[in-house]
Amino acid sequence: MAELLKVDADRLWSTLAASAKIGTHKTGLRRLALSDEDKAMRDQFVAWARQSDYAVKVDKIGNIYVRREGSDPSLPPVVMGSHLDTTIEGGRFDGILGVLGGLEVLRSLDDAGIETKRAIEVIDFTDEEGSRFSMSMVGSLTYTGATELEDVYELTDKDGKKLGDELERIGYKGDEPLGERTFDAFIELHIEQAPELDEENLDIGLIVGSYNIRGYRVMFEGETAHIGPTPMDRRHNALTGAGYMIGKVNDIGLKYAATNGKTTCAKIDVWPNIYGILPSEVELTIDYRHADMETLAQMKAELDAALVESCTRAQVTSRITKTWKFGDDGFDPELCDMMRAIVPGITERHKEMLGQAGHDAYSMASFGVPTVMIFTPCIDGITHNTAEDVDWERTIPGLNLMLNLVEQRANRPAP
Amino acid sequence: MAELLKVDADRLWSTLAASAKIGTHKTGLRRLALSDEDKAMRDQFVAWARQSDYAVKVDKIGNIYVRREGSDPSLPPVVMGSHLDTTIEGGRFDGILGVLGGLEVLRSLDDAGIETKRAIEVIDFTDEEGSRFSMSMVGSLTYTGATELEDVYELTDKDGKKLGDELERIGYKGDEPLGERTFDAFIELHIEQAPELDEENLDIGLIVGSYNIRGYRVMFEGETAHIGPTPMDRRHNALTGAGYMIGKVNDIGLKYAATNGKTTCAKIDVWPNIYGILPSEVELTIDYRHADMETLAQMKAELDAALVESCTRAQVTSRITKTWKFGDDGFDPELCDMMRAIVPGITERHKEMLGQAGHDAYSMASFGVPTVMIFTPCIDGITHNTAEDVDWERTIPGLNLMLNLVEQRANRPAP
Repeated sequence: MAELLKVDADRLWSTLAASAKIGTHKTGLRRLALSDEDKAMRDQFVAWARQSDYAVKVDKIGNIYVRREGSDPSLPPVVMGSHLDTTIEGGRFDGILGVLGGLEVLRSLDDAGIETKRAIEVIDFTDEEGSRFSMSMVGSLTYTGATELEDVYELTDKDGKKLGDELERIGYKGDEPLGERTFDAFIELHIEQAPELDEENLDIGLIVGSYNIRGYRVMFEGETAHIGPTPMDRRHNALTGAGYMIGKVNDIGLKYAATNGKTTCAKIDVWPNIYGILPSEVELTIDYRHADMETLAQMKAELDAALVESCTRAQVTSRITKTWKFGDDGFDPELCDMMRAIVPGITERHKEMLGQAGHDAYSMASFGVPTVMIFTPCIDGITHNTAEDVDWERTIPGLNLMLNLVEQRANRPAP
Repeated sequence: MAELLKVDADRLWSTLAASAKIGTHKTGLRRLALSDEDKAMRDQFVAWARQSDYAVKVDKIGNIYVRREGSDPSLPPVVMGSHLDTTIEGGRFDGILGVLGGLEVLRSLDDAGIETKRAIEVIDFTDEEGSRFSMSMVGSLTYTGATELEDVYELTDKDGKKLGDELERIGYKGDEPLGERTFDAFIELHIEQAPELDEENLDIGLIVGSYNIRGYRVMFEGETAHIGPTPMDRRHNALTGAGYMIGKVNDIGLKYAATNGKTTCAKIDVWPNIYGILPSEVELTIDYRHADMETLAQMKAELDAALVESCTRAQVTSRITKTWKFGDDGFDPELCDMMRAIVPGITERHKEMLGQAGHDAYSMASFGVPTVMIFTPCIDGITHNTAEDVDWERTIPGLNLMLNLVEQRANRPAP
């Protein structure tokens, strides 16, 4: 077995340190998609790519493709990618490690003087976090055609600014068409977002599949009325219906917590949301997820019953206005086997896991691209929070796994 | 006993019909405070006043005073008043009937050729509804000094427009100082806001006091985290805490519904309110009211316990950021007795009641002005809704009560 390649951990750390200075917020980052900070980070990423003579292309939704050419440019590239944007209270590693780690893989191959048969690319996907325009995984989902480009351009932030205009303003509305590239493989390295690896003292998570993730929006409909005189039994307070539901949703999640089931209400919109008036319209977003499909169906049945109970108790009606799902498309068995073969040469401290969050990798998998993910530990599993942090020593093994996986994949015989 | 005076019901109806054309929305009105519609209605009100040679003054918060002079201008005036603004889905009578009914009282005295010893005034209070700048009873509370004028000018609507600027824009930032007038009495006629008179087939409610009304804002504090991987038992979802509380608040209200107790959550503000992130800050407004002070204290104790339970279950903390109360200042016994003496000459279909909602009258009462209210029936008690409607025949008796009360009060011997 050939000696395994290693990334330059110090160089990658200095790259991450430079990123941590762009949009610094408390101990983390506030680098919202298509903000001035996002533009500055994109400019830096492109500058780094050009310093190494990698080709740079930008597509119509602003995804940036950095390419280290292969000896046979006609073969589809092996692609790494994640995102450089953060949430409003984000950390320095979520998404960023996958992109700048990908850049480090290219640089390490340069250092080692290794030419690959296939080209290797790194993608910075636009607006993965969805913290500004209320849609997440914007770049990858739009690339795959899961959402229409024209609709996405019209998304507005809280100040009424349109995503398309902001993309143009920061100079990243590119020309590359969407959905027309062929990828040999897609690999996303990401910090874990639960304290699993951290607590079990493991350094690498091989993500061989995903939780089944479901979401839906419920519109509760009642009647506006004055809060003072309207008797309790004549009220149709839509917020009361939503309130009962929020409690029940959490109860159901707690019930399935032992098998790592999860339920969430994180977003609610109330109309008119004024002190003195019973609200007539409340839209609540509900998310639930479980690794086991049968348990997932059972959770859904309980959520359905909870919705009926909540509406009855509050004397309001409800209707589901939108549903979505992701995570059902499994990861590529061949890529999983390649990871399994490489990892023992790097560390014994690894295990196989299921992804639990939305990632651009799922967009790629659902688009038919052979996909896999690698998780590295995150201290206490805290992400989407400025306190997000990593143990650097324990982060490097995952990067070395990505480097070797990409190199072997890019150099395997052409079909 | 002298023959009782009567208003001109047809004239008042045509006045209300003209008002119903300014800011028409569905079958009701959308005449938000300091909007173009509010300006148009104020202009119309002032024009009507001038047609009858009544003096018009405007104070610094935009309250409009229309005055029919008395034979002794040195005596404090008898004052009627309410508001011409509506909620975002408002009706044609809430507030409006009190102001335009007051105008009709002046006109009816003109018709009858009656001069009064004291002047009689009608006030249109600025922004009673609070639907635009998130504070209700703006005009009357600012007049009494319960809130600082400078602070109130800085209140912003959802588009960031300031109340002070909007007042200036529509031309109603007047010169009259606040809090310096002496009122002999304040009388507010208002449609009822519960179906009590309507259902009991009564035409007049003599409002001799108020429910005790309490409100507070609770800030639930948790921690932002990714909704996907964060285990249920590690979550600190502030919205979950608020959700449990909303349900429990309603449960407590239902428990006291038999004695007409009420609890309400109508306003909630969530941060960051994004699908993928557990919210860390949620501010919830809670209102509770009861006629009996001891029961009110009991309700508060249960609400306090519910808050502790909700926070424990959701693993979040909470703190009360603001509290308020109104309705504790009783109405004037002498004015109540005058109403009781007059009403049998008008109709047998009346009863004494307690007010249950916030009204400008409570601001006046808390300022030490001898105050009383008159309620007229409202079909099904529906207000703050475009479906708000009245039975006109059953509305007139209340107006006749106000006319005679005002006339007798204004003509009683000087002290």
